[in-house]
Amino acid sequence: MAREPGGTQGGERIRDVVLDPGLDLGPEAETLLYLASRAEFVRRIVRPALDEGRIVVADRYEFSTLAYQGIGRGLGLEKVRGLNSWATGGLEPDAVILLRIEPSAGRDRKEEEPDRLERESGEFFRQVAEAYDLLASTDSRIVAVDGQGSPEEIEERVIAELVGRWPGTFEVLKR
Amino acid sequence: MAREPGGTQGGERIRDVVLDPGLDLGPEAETLLYLASRAEFVRRIVRPALDEGRIVVADRYEFSTLAYQGIGRGLGLEKVRGLNSWATGGLEPDAVILLRIEPSAGRDRKEEEPDRLERESGEFFRQVAEAYDLLASTDSRIVAVDGQGSPEEIEERVIAELVGRWPGTFEVLKR
Repeated sequence: MAREPGGTQGGERIRDVVLDPGLDLGPEAETLLYLASRAEFVRRIVRPALDEGRIVVADRYEFSTLAYQGIGRGLGLEKVRGLNSWATGGLEPDAVILLRIEPSAGRDRKEEEPDRLERESGEFFRQVAEAYDLLASTDSRIVAVDGQGSPEEIEERVIAELVGRWPGTFEVLKR
Repeated sequence: MAREPGGTQGGERIRDVVLDPGLDLGPEAETLLYLASRAEFVRRIVRPALDEGRIVVADRYEFSTLAYQGIGRGLGLEKVRGLNSWATGGLEPDAVILLRIEPSAGRDRKEEEPDRLERESGEFFRQVAEAYDLLASTDSRIVAVDGQGSPEEIEERVIAELVGRWPGTFEVLKR
């Protein structure tokens, strides 16, 4: 389990820059910083873990960049997909769990001070939510799960989806 | 006159990361950080200045990334060129002054502590110097100037080259 951006020595330093609410960054620089953090994340954490035969669960990966920067920032899905593929050496997830929730409800859940991205407008987050739905409708690896309710309820839904898809691998997660 | 990486609020923060000798960064992250800084540099400094009809002289631009990351780090010239073009919105220099000097002599000139890149091996800098020569031999915008001698001597050579190429524009620089 690791977070993005961040998770590595370089990635955490990049995270401090890209999420700094005091910093004004253009969409290209923002995207390149997320991808720099991801490149380190893949090189230092994901590849070595996969080489050991482990399963990696990441909080965010390329679909966040596609939704936020490709669509939210208007940079284009194909371009951002190409840049991401270069940054990660073409490493793709087997499955993506998309937790669906009303953007306004998602913002209400946050307890800390909003970071640079979280300060964007409601309109921006509506576009990002629509982008995720669009991606889910065109990519069978994305499993949309109802993100309403308690953490325990959501966890149960996620496990049910994973066990349904890979009974042998995730059976161990069942309660 | 501006420096790269850096020169902008975001760029200086990125510079602190990419040149930190205490940080181990893979070649992809290194390249993406340089390009993020450049994207901000173009957006905040170069484009506005060009729009005002000014001439911009930058210390480093895409050819540094081509030489250091494309060849020195082995990421490939065409790939790095494409990434750079996206980051800068395709903004290209009209002329590039390449100050040629033996890599070892260049390193002897430095007075400060070496940064992360400057700690690379002599072999790395020989490859980068060869890469600059290769680029100069294939791109007529690159003007190679002898980088040996005092700053005043080198300045005179640079001005002579610029005035020779653009007599109307740079005549004012002549002593």
